[in-house]
Amino acid sequence: MAAATTRRRVTANGELQENGGGAGQRPTNGTRRRPSAAGSGGSTPLWRVAVFASVALNVATLALLLHHYAISHPWRQSPAPAVASPPPDACVLSGKSEARQEEVTKDRASAAMSPSTGKPTVRTDSVINLDHGDPTVFEAFWRETGALAEIVIPGWQTMSYFSDVGNVCWFLEPEFGRQVRRLHRTVRNAAAGDEYHVVVGTGSTQLFMAALYALSPSGSGDPISIVSTAPYYSSYPAVTDFLRSGLFRWAGDANSFKGDEYIELVCSPNNPDGALRDAVLRSEAGKTVHDLAYYWPQYTPITAEAAHDIMLFTVSKSTGHAGTRIGWALVKDREVAKRMTKFVELNTIGVSKDSQMRAAKVLSAVSDGYDMGSGSRHRHRLFDFGRRKMVERWAMLRAAAAASGIFSLPEETSGHCSFSNDTAANNPAFAWLRCDREDVEDCAGFLRGHKILTRSGSQFGADPRYVRVSMLDRDDAYGIFVTRLASLK
Amino acid sequence: MAAATTRRRVTANGELQENGGGAGQRPTNGTRRRPSAAGSGGSTPLWRVAVFASVALNVATLALLLHHYAISHPWRQSPAPAVASPPPDACVLSGKSEARQEEVTKDRASAAMSPSTGKPTVRTDSVINLDHGDPTVFEAFWRETGALAEIVIPGWQTMSYFSDVGNVCWFLEPEFGRQVRRLHRTVRNAAAGDEYHVVVGTGSTQLFMAALYALSPSGSGDPISIVSTAPYYSSYPAVTDFLRSGLFRWAGDANSFKGDEYIELVCSPNNPDGALRDAVLRSEAGKTVHDLAYYWPQYTPITAEAAHDIMLFTVSKSTGHAGTRIGWALVKDREVAKRMTKFVELNTIGVSKDSQMRAAKVLSAVSDGYDMGSGSRHRHRLFDFGRRKMVERWAMLRAAAAASGIFSLPEETSGHCSFSNDTAANNPAFAWLRCDREDVEDCAGFLRGHKILTRSGSQFGADPRYVRVSMLDRDDAYGIFVTRLASLK
Repeated sequence: MAAATTRRRVTANGELQENGGGAGQRPTNGTRRRPSAAGSGGSTPLWRVAVFASVALNVATLALLLHHYAISHPWRQSPAPAVASPPPDACVLSGKSEARQEEVTKDRASAAMSPSTGKPTVRTDSVINLDHGDPTVFEAFWRETGALAEIVIPGWQTMSYFSDVGNVCWFLEPEFGRQVRRLHRTVRNAAAGDEYHVVVGTGSTQLFMAALYALSPSGSGDPISIVSTAPYYSSYPAVTDFLRSGLFRWAGDANSFKGDEYIELVCSPNNPDGALRDAVLRSEAGKTVHDLAYYWPQYTPITAEAAHDIMLFTVSKSTGHAGTRIGWALVKDREVAKRMTKFVELNTIGVSKDSQMRAAKVLSAVSDGYDMGSGSRHRHRLFDFGRRKMVERWAMLRAAAAASGIFSLPEETSGHCSFSNDTAANNPAFAWLRCDREDVEDCAGFLRGHKILTRSGSQFGADPRYVRVSMLDRDDAYGIFVTRLASLK
Repeated sequence: MAAATTRRRVTANGELQENGGGAGQRPTNGTRRRPSAAGSGGSTPLWRVAVFASVALNVATLALLLHHYAISHPWRQSPAPAVASPPPDACVLSGKSEARQEEVTKDRASAAMSPSTGKPTVRTDSVINLDHGDPTVFEAFWRETGALAEIVIPGWQTMSYFSDVGNVCWFLEPEFGRQVRRLHRTVRNAAAGDEYHVVVGTGSTQLFMAALYALSPSGSGDPISIVSTAPYYSSYPAVTDFLRSGLFRWAGDANSFKGDEYIELVCSPNNPDGALRDAVLRSEAGKTVHDLAYYWPQYTPITAEAAHDIMLFTVSKSTGHAGTRIGWALVKDREVAKRMTKFVELNTIGVSKDSQMRAAKVLSAVSDGYDMGSGSRHRHRLFDFGRRKMVERWAMLRAAAAASGIFSLPEETSGHCSFSNDTAANNPAFAWLRCDREDVEDCAGFLRGHKILTRSGSQFGADPRYVRVSMLDRDDAYGIFVTRLASLK
């Protein structure tokens, strides 16, 4: 799945300055040539007119986009909102009179007590926190699906530790396992037939640790080296090392690793830079874990059905349900699946069944949206919504970077998506943003000064001129972010 | 909270043979004198009559108890049962017509998909698995409460990673925190005012690890020693050591520990033997973690409001919702609470909000049952149900052990319970059963031969003549267990 990643600097006059490879080249983050200041050559009146026109065009485009955005996606958060009017095919309320629906809705809102609403609502002068990949962009979609993705949990349900005593993963809710396999059959992004075991985890972070535990040699020798190509997800070193385990130890960038025994983490599309990746090490004794959290059609074209030994997924990024803390691993080897299960048993004695049932319901609603046989009049299609949203946001961000003139972004790549059967762009869940101003060596610090919180490149084993910016926040926060970014000079 | 634990052997002729201390003495498991075979002295006709009468009386008592049990608690598990007819004061369905209630009930059952039902239903010749403390005894109670403990989760709810950005524990659902404090105010088993931080975990096992992480020295020195008085919960050594952490290491029985720096785990009432415990080590540099999972009125009299530095609780044992995987810690020191929070962040990026909301609803229903101001006509009182059940089961077990003649159990202790304002017995969630037959050195193996699965004393740092038996399984499994136990000679 290796693909080209070039970086394109959009200068204030709209010129493109490229850096990095063509097809098949690795990302070259942090090594690219600094562009010379735009138009430092002969300054003619014509040049001035061109620059002015270009800036005006960029700003106008951005304003237009933001206007459209605000009109079409008004922010609808309220402290504890009632169920948004469910569609006629809602499975719980189907066929009931409108008055009764209202009554039930009210009753349910009271039964739901007071759930949290995530980060506080923002105003134009607020600190905008895009440090975490909080996927609240998807809330709008799930409000529209109404009762299709709603669950009811009676007080006596799933009280036991056990879900499926005969299964390798004895705490896996069978319904969740079924919906995982069904969704992969629908999207064809990963093989999930009987040759794979499904292991459920409290988010994919727990499964990441479970995989390290399962793949580490069981003897009393030195800890095995954990590596990943830089820039790598900042949690990998942190989670690997925080308990100072004698089983495994962080060993940094896979490209500079020497040795035969290792576990290579392959995140594709990659967090933080969205690059599509393959393993770079090829030792017989080496092992790989594929983190495919972002390998879904809203972020990237589905170019092949992945079929690796261990593949990690999470509802946080596939459907946006981060608060539900559910991830899953598709695992080929039965013994590895058993050891991963053992890890989760020792760590948390299984995984919340409430969340598994909720995730099952949500995944089911996603598959239903693309199931031609389901006969529903109302189509709620998550990946269509998600891709539309991501395309929109990336356009806004590129326009903002161009208007500002001091930032550059990875070049857009595209490919044929077998799921949507068309050519689709790579629209990563994070922007890997570089500040090109000569005097800014710490981009995160610079943005913090403008009340924009991002994660520094240094946390990803990369240059601190880079930052990772979440593209998945709510419309209001994202809108304020791009407006503010565009104003930075 | 130290209390007497003596062991009483009920011989076949009903005589008591005691071993171990009076008030204030420590448990003396594994050191007690073997009783001589009953009646090995002169064999007179009168003696034979007495033995016969005694055995007959025991068996009759057991039969009577089992009969009463079967009548009053018929087993009601069905593969995916609909909501049991909700009481008139059900908060979701209040004031609706009966016909409508039925409709809604049906709709909800379909919305709930197919949740698991725990371990399979048993028959009289089944293997009975009492190895785990699977708290399904409480299902019957929660079926009776109907919609009072039911929750509805709309598809768009709690999608964010964040619950309460201003709180030390940023992923704690405020409603769950409120209900935790309210329940402790109701039961008065632990101080939970503003001087304590609530840290939520994926079960209390995760919080146990979090506490070790938080209390370990942050330098690069040797791992700190983790100790607990034997017999100790079998998970303590397993969970402490499975990642071979450089921060902490299992060091065994607290009573034989030499040194100043340690973390002592104090489980009270103790898993496996139900003894009430205090810390045994007293070094200034030492730290303690109090595991109070079983310090609830159904298991033990509430004799004082505990107010230790770190206290761990879980819904698995307090309300029986093991599948929900929710525990909480009450933590005095802000920095320790922050480090525990950091552990959970690195381990699982927070805790399922679905489960937190469900647990909040369940805890709220428990408190409501004892809230004189709530004005509800229907009283669903968990601790009354739980105590009744535990008293019943302990009576059955003691009768079965007496009928068998080859087992002994810890002596029953009692105390004044400030919650119920009466004298109450200690009715532990596990039976610490000893097989007294000379030729049985491995009690777990012996019972396994009779299709009863228990956990060997050797896993608790104790004599393998002991086993831990869960007292919290469903009525049918428990009934078959005691019947089978009574028949062993």
